[in-house]
Amino acid sequence: MTTTAETAETARTAEAAGTTGGPAAPLTGEMVLAGARVRGRGRTVHAVDPRTGRTLDPGYALGGAEDVDRAATAAAEAFRTYRRTDPGVRAAFLDTTAEILTDRTETIVARVQQETGIPEARVRGELTRTVNQLRLFAGVLREGSAAGVRIEPALPDRTPLPRPDLRQRRVPLGPVAVFGASNFPLAFSVAGGDTAAALAAGCPVVVKAHGSHPGTSELVGLAVTEAAARHGLPAGVFSLVYGEGREVGTALAAHPAVRAVGFTGSRAGGTALMAVAQARPHPIPVYAEMSSTNPVVLLPGALGERGADIGAGFAASLTTSAGQLCTNPGLVLLVEGPGSAEFLDSAADAVRRTPATPMLSPAISSAYRDGVQALREHPAVTELAAGEEDESLAAPGTAHLFTTTATAFAADEALAAEVFGATSLVVRVPDVADLPALLERLEGQLTATVHLSEADTATAADLVPVLEEKVGRLVVNGWPTGVDVGAAIVHGGPFPATSDGRSTSVGTLAIERFQRPVAYQDAPAALLPPELRDGASTPTT
Amino acid sequence: MTTTAETAETARTAEAAGTTGGPAAPLTGEMVLAGARVRGRGRTVHAVDPRTGRTLDPGYALGGAEDVDRAATAAAEAFRTYRRTDPGVRAAFLDTTAEILTDRTETIVARVQQETGIPEARVRGELTRTVNQLRLFAGVLREGSAAGVRIEPALPDRTPLPRPDLRQRRVPLGPVAVFGASNFPLAFSVAGGDTAAALAAGCPVVVKAHGSHPGTSELVGLAVTEAAARHGLPAGVFSLVYGEGREVGTALAAHPAVRAVGFTGSRAGGTALMAVAQARPHPIPVYAEMSSTNPVVLLPGALGERGADIGAGFAASLTTSAGQLCTNPGLVLLVEGPGSAEFLDSAADAVRRTPATPMLSPAISSAYRDGVQALREHPAVTELAAGEEDESLAAPGTAHLFTTTATAFAADEALAAEVFGATSLVVRVPDVADLPALLERLEGQLTATVHLSEADTATAADLVPVLEEKVGRLVVNGWPTGVDVGAAIVHGGPFPATSDGRSTSVGTLAIERFQRPVAYQDAPAALLPPELRDGASTPTT
Repeated sequence: MTTTAETAETARTAEAAGTTGGPAAPLTGEMVLAGARVRGRGRTVHAVDPRTGRTLDPGYALGGAEDVDRAATAAAEAFRTYRRTDPGVRAAFLDTTAEILTDRTETIVARVQQETGIPEARVRGELTRTVNQLRLFAGVLREGSAAGVRIEPALPDRTPLPRPDLRQRRVPLGPVAVFGASNFPLAFSVAGGDTAAALAAGCPVVVKAHGSHPGTSELVGLAVTEAAARHGLPAGVFSLVYGEGREVGTALAAHPAVRAVGFTGSRAGGTALMAVAQARPHPIPVYAEMSSTNPVVLLPGALGERGADIGAGFAASLTTSAGQLCTNPGLVLLVEGPGSAEFLDSAADAVRRTPATPMLSPAISSAYRDGVQALREHPAVTELAAGEEDESLAAPGTAHLFTTTATAFAADEALAAEVFGATSLVVRVPDVADLPALLERLEGQLTATVHLSEADTATAADLVPVLEEKVGRLVVNGWPTGVDVGAAIVHGGPFPATSDGRSTSVGTLAIERFQRPVAYQDAPAALLPPELRDGASTPTT
Repeated sequence: MTTTAETAETARTAEAAGTTGGPAAPLTGEMVLAGARVRGRGRTVHAVDPRTGRTLDPGYALGGAEDVDRAATAAAEAFRTYRRTDPGVRAAFLDTTAEILTDRTETIVARVQQETGIPEARVRGELTRTVNQLRLFAGVLREGSAAGVRIEPALPDRTPLPRPDLRQRRVPLGPVAVFGASNFPLAFSVAGGDTAAALAAGCPVVVKAHGSHPGTSELVGLAVTEAAARHGLPAGVFSLVYGEGREVGTALAAHPAVRAVGFTGSRAGGTALMAVAQARPHPIPVYAEMSSTNPVVLLPGALGERGADIGAGFAASLTTSAGQLCTNPGLVLLVEGPGSAEFLDSAADAVRRTPATPMLSPAISSAYRDGVQALREHPAVTELAAGEEDESLAAPGTAHLFTTTATAFAADEALAAEVFGATSLVVRVPDVADLPALLERLEGQLTATVHLSEADTATAADLVPVLEEKVGRLVVNGWPTGVDVGAAIVHGGPFPATSDGRSTSVGTLAIERFQRPVAYQDAPAALLPPELRDGASTPTT
């Protein structure tokens, strides 16, 4: 293990500081490197309250490549023992993390609100989701299916050749680098889906904290660290590093000890990590969730029956959380006819009545306003409605609704790009027959949504195969926002929605992204992992 | 679809030529592009009998990027219908392919022998394996588990939020480019594992024929094409292209319609395809099986009990098929002590008595001899034995056995590189305590093998976690050659054994490499695929 960073170390560990369990310790602005609190040696940054622009204490001194090396090296060391832990021990670790987070709900909720401007109710809901996700994965570990067991006993009398005894299970890939997202400071960040999946799989985790919520990251990172200590796990099973993406993020994805990357963020950030991972002497998988407009298709029967209701539901989905959700419906294909005017009126009316909302950060707000301005200036785009403005916000977010024609949409691929925030582009489609070609033009998406009535069934059935090729999840008569965390969910999709459409970043299938299969041929029981021995109760696949 | 190649087309299709089923049609040297026979417009190449150096007819005129475009475009078109076929139809397609191949056994066996020099018994065995593999995958399709069904019914009363109805299945990725291997002209080539897995998954296939067995490729490619026609499948579901790797291979991996690559061959070839796939606007998965020395660890107890027997078994595994197997044991870690001399004597004796064998091609023979020469000239390496030579062979292969010390092996990573052919390097290890560090130094491998007795159990148990990190399959008291095709096998492993250690290229799990998950939320039965409807008999995972 490198010791270059140790001069800056406070010589306290989470445990020594007396913080295992109980109320949250005061924030210090230090990283958590394999259980040790370490102050970075780079410049100091502060979180900003996007509602007020006020700077929040403490300062966070950024780490560098030496901190990445320390964390990743400790993770590799911890992996030797952590990968062999009983699934029940990993389950208990996840449950304890959930318990500590729950115990500290009020501290966490307050800090998340300060750092992100997300309303209290949604923060509480997101914390519940995060905690439930940890417990769900613990349940999968106890049940045993995550091991992917396949057993074929020997057939000594098979001809022309006897069959050996073959037993397969999935093993963890190794240390995982997790890059937290700004828009889900809990559920897609330090102890979010990727971290829960990696820890469940048996992989240590090194998190690069998102710069917009360092305090939340510290609170949650300490909870994971304390849970690991409580179960006697090696401290290197979890680390939390602060730093610039270009330095610390790149060093993390390039580190030889790191065996996979989980990322939620921008397309530029995700593709940069993909390039780093591929350029390594030993390339590694990157699971980057990046960009999606989540098209919504409104069919004539549904519009005729309930155009106004659909408009209201759409606007609610669009404007929730200031539109800062990966599954935000940023594109609508509206088949013109009875009900389409009612849809537009209703949606526009709801957008106009939407209060200005603080966005996650001034930078996100600024990028959002640039995206809106580009749509406003586009000659083929009409602004249908704008929500309320509030110039007193440091990172204002105002809802917008635009329309364009199918011809114009087909002619300019810039109109299909994501604008991250509460804006959506409604494409007026003359006829259902135009839909397949318009959908075929789209890039990969996390979701697609179809609103239909009985009368639209045949039309929709023709669209399903086109949509299946584009998305990870198909929603009918609902809205894409609100992702259920379970066994059947897919939060993924073809590039550029994600870097690897073969996986999901939400739900129990996510555990598999950090595993690979190994077969054992004619191995005696003493050499087999417990789940592969005769009489093990592990479910087989 | 491009028509640039049509001037060269013979205007016959496989069906029009009256060749659906029945005896094999005479070889023409034409490609098979979506059912049409098309002569390439590049230079003409001939297969060479590696036993005699004799040129074989017919000539094969190489194709170019325009042929790739035609095949890939037809594959994309075929995908629209093929992906929606009932699994039973795909099963019948695979079974019919197996049946046609079986009907043409004598023609195929004769041509494979001519093009590869592989002995008749092994060719017949490989054809049986290929046919059984197609039938195994057909069985998986009929049984239903390949769909990966996960169903979570709605919970309308759940709090705080109701749960939607969520149903997940796996869908095919799209057209797959398959690059056949030279060393398994049937089982890892035109209708080999990758093709069978892709077709089972619902993906059309475009094969780039390996240049060393074009006639075998034509025979097998026609069988697949005829089977597709017999079941009324779109002709674009399968194409066979001849051409240079740098032109045709690159064009295939870069083609926008191609969604995944399966490759078996050299490390240079595999990493080149990885680079092409990552540089695409829409990156795609590459499954390249590349390089492996398949280390064998011989523990003291096993050596003491049966050193001579292990030596004989090792030599048999080493020299089978002139050592041209992916799982050939090219590296032995021999713990010195009682029985180690007997192992070496027995192995050396068997190697000396090994007849010279034709290798697959003059190029492979030449590369093999270069690798052997480099070992001979290495100052820390001793040649222990050499097999018989036969200078009358056009592509001679002579077995070799070398030894070195653990110190020398640890000091020069060149000694850990694969030499493709019947040569192996025995590393003399002073003590079992030296094994973990030596094994940690190795790159990813397809397999590792351990020979042990009861007395070695504790030693072996300590090695298992190290080996699990390095390999896809761990063999105990057996040999890595001879890969069983079933549900529990893994033929894969960490880089550079393969480009993607999360998969296998042999066995039924291989179907998943060409799929990705999609979730359907609140979709009515009319929009669900049959396997996700209420009451479907599909097994869930």
